[in-house]
Amino acid sequence: MTDPLELLRRELGDIVDTTPASLEAARADRSGHRSPGHPLAVVHARTVEDVQTTMRIASRTMAPVVVRGAGTGLAGAANAGPGEIVLSTAAMTGILEVRPDDLIAVVEPGILNADLNAHLATLGLWWAPDPASRDISTVGGNIATGAGGLLCAKYGVVRDAVLGVDLVLADGRMLRLGHRTVKGVTGLDLTSLVIGSEGRLGIVVGATLKLRRLVPGVVCTLTASFRTVRDAAAAAAAVTAAGVQPAIMELMDARSLAAVHALLRLPAPVEGTAQLTIQTDGPASREEAERVAAVLRAAGGAVALTDDPAEGERLLQVRRSMHPAMASLGTTLIEDVAVPRSAMPAMFDEIARIEREYGVSIPTVAHAGDGNLHPNFIFDGVEVPSHIWAAADELFRAAIRLGGTLTGEHGIGMLKSRWLAEELGEDQWQVQRDIVRVFDPQGILNPGKVFDA
Amino acid sequence: MTDPLELLRRELGDIVDTTPASLEAARADRSGHRSPGHPLAVVHARTVEDVQTTMRIASRTMAPVVVRGAGTGLAGAANAGPGEIVLSTAAMTGILEVRPDDLIAVVEPGILNADLNAHLATLGLWWAPDPASRDISTVGGNIATGAGGLLCAKYGVVRDAVLGVDLVLADGRMLRLGHRTVKGVTGLDLTSLVIGSEGRLGIVVGATLKLRRLVPGVVCTLTASFRTVRDAAAAAAAVTAAGVQPAIMELMDARSLAAVHALLRLPAPVEGTAQLTIQTDGPASREEAERVAAVLRAAGGAVALTDDPAEGERLLQVRRSMHPAMASLGTTLIEDVAVPRSAMPAMFDEIARIEREYGVSIPTVAHAGDGNLHPNFIFDGVEVPSHIWAAADELFRAAIRLGGTLTGEHGIGMLKSRWLAEELGEDQWQVQRDIVRVFDPQGILNPGKVFDA
Repeated sequence: MTDPLELLRRELGDIVDTTPASLEAARADRSGHRSPGHPLAVVHARTVEDVQTTMRIASRTMAPVVVRGAGTGLAGAANAGPGEIVLSTAAMTGILEVRPDDLIAVVEPGILNADLNAHLATLGLWWAPDPASRDISTVGGNIATGAGGLLCAKYGVVRDAVLGVDLVLADGRMLRLGHRTVKGVTGLDLTSLVIGSEGRLGIVVGATLKLRRLVPGVVCTLTASFRTVRDAAAAAAAVTAAGVQPAIMELMDARSLAAVHALLRLPAPVEGTAQLTIQTDGPASREEAERVAAVLRAAGGAVALTDDPAEGERLLQVRRSMHPAMASLGTTLIEDVAVPRSAMPAMFDEIARIEREYGVSIPTVAHAGDGNLHPNFIFDGVEVPSHIWAAADELFRAAIRLGGTLTGEHGIGMLKSRWLAEELGEDQWQVQRDIVRVFDPQGILNPGKVFDA
Repeated sequence: MTDPLELLRRELGDIVDTTPASLEAARADRSGHRSPGHPLAVVHARTVEDVQTTMRIASRTMAPVVVRGAGTGLAGAANAGPGEIVLSTAAMTGILEVRPDDLIAVVEPGILNADLNAHLATLGLWWAPDPASRDISTVGGNIATGAGGLLCAKYGVVRDAVLGVDLVLADGRMLRLGHRTVKGVTGLDLTSLVIGSEGRLGIVVGATLKLRRLVPGVVCTLTASFRTVRDAAAAAAAVTAAGVQPAIMELMDARSLAAVHALLRLPAPVEGTAQLTIQTDGPASREEAERVAAVLRAAGGAVALTDDPAEGERLLQVRRSMHPAMASLGTTLIEDVAVPRSAMPAMFDEIARIEREYGVSIPTVAHAGDGNLHPNFIFDGVEVPSHIWAAADELFRAAIRLGGTLTGEHGIGMLKSRWLAEELGEDQWQVQRDIVRVFDPQGILNPGKVFDA
């Protein structure tokens, strides 16, 4: 018998889901893209054995497998199409172990980032990665994409916060990668190789996470308005250059700020006004906030500063309302370039140039502490029009020219695979492709994603 | 013509060194082991092109290549033997770029860690990795071994401090891996794969390093004496569990402490006494030192605390004198296991058991903040006797049993390759081996190291 669906049903029973709603939902993530049609089935794995069984059947029948967590990705890596098995780890939500003394947690991949952190907080602990999607995205998905977030300049990215992963290979065998120790250099660092591999190397079925203790002290929040986005970007770079390390430093350009003010029914900002929102934390929070305020004022900013948590949350709410504000303008292609921090003003110049040359509107927010920009291309309808892709292409090339990268935290998925070789170079692209083949010789794991061939 | 030496001489001229002293020196690193005989030649590369030319000749003639920095490794990875070309990057010492605003530096591999940090200090910056060898080891060597050091629990390991590497492959092509940005998730993380790969994947000819600003505030130093090493280990675990994060937390067992006191002509400690040496830094340094002191006293320690830099340096000098003190006792096999921090007391119990059962003396120091122990096996003569290897074997198995690893920061080299598969599992060992083959299909890069087959 070589029908994968029959084999799955026989061996896994009612966790094999072929209801139209489930198949339809698995076609798309949050990238705005969807696959050309329904996948074969969604397997709702509950255990490592379920995952291994699914992969053994897939290997035997050469059926491609798309692994999926909560489906909140922004690059299409988890979109599944005709002939594909969707392997969902969303139901594997266990916290298997938390060791406050060793600052580690061992978890299953399907637990939501926010649920994990709610539990850890009761123990005075946290897992630092904080993608904007943290309320709805899984730890496994955070690992698969190498997710970032707002706190990365100070507290690191996912790569800095994972000590080990358990990985089921395409043929169903399981590898235990990494360590439970702070240090460990036995052989090649396959844990880091899996982080950000977007479902191409195997299925993450468990992870040993590096935790932090909750940061003591008050959190201070600042906002600063600037006449132009270039001034705001230069001020953000000046904060970093002054040697202060904010926990959060977010930049909103004029179009973003105006859209959010409209959505929240706040008074419209003066035309052209851009804004920085900054938080400092830790034992020196107040002193650092004062130093940041001085740098911002010297850079021409109008500064507000508070150490009141409720007022701080209100100020941050403006930044947090970016996604709904964009949705109110039309359909959005959220981009994700990153540049060295000093190149941010130049990158905003490039965005302004691309807006002019292509006749498009690109409201942009940036994690200004780490140089990661999210330009939002706005258009009508559901398909990305070709002139938007042309403008995005110009944006990617500008970022690479400035010493930056195509994607800071969202990944390549299916949306950016055509630009990957340009950034990596053909030789490195081929080496990466050959490494994928070591893990998955038949090419059944998420084919066509990241590497388009 | 297929004689590699003639080809090297013809194409590279007088950087090809076959003087007996150079060939002899290349047989050994600081592991105490040496290869069975002289290598073919030492190539003193000055440029990336020199490295590429060497690798092209090696590929054409199938001559194995051992890359070498300062030769300070402790696992034999840079030991070169008959028929092998030594490719030294020790003369490539350039600092190509330092960007205080972006907190990055671009360097050549041969620069010494201490020389780089001396330059960075003039700009108020530092590169955090601080192996005990930092005065004499190269940045390229630190990357090749995935080096650690004393400050890792607070400031991270090499993996956390490298954004990109330029890698010359076995066939002479160069790959530019990684990013100049804080975030970046384009394709697989090959930068992390190269870190700790001990010369098996390619030649590191350049690196983009992630810098930190010098930490402001006073440094406080504490020492605490305990009746037994178990008490000291439990106190160290209690400090971590109390949520304080020292910059340095070093543990010396009774044999180590007695040997250093004898070397420095200090009064002999009370029989059995073990010692912790701790430093706190940063804006809350003093408060943290007081909290640490309270935890240590509650754990039965006799505590001394100072914020005087000279006095602090004097206290730390005892720990720093460990290596010469060991050398005064005999020949040393320095081991490097790491365990979860909470397992340190149990690991010291295991060491005591192994001392009894094998009739050996194992003075041990530990980076107690991160659970990395350096048990020193002392013996007479130059070859490690078989009963020492048997005791070391027992030590490795004990560490793995306690959730730990064979090597926290020294690497596998040739000394531990026979235990590697036991920790990784056969399946992972084979996957790692296959990845090496992607980079080096002919198997000419550091053959026999790390993977013994």
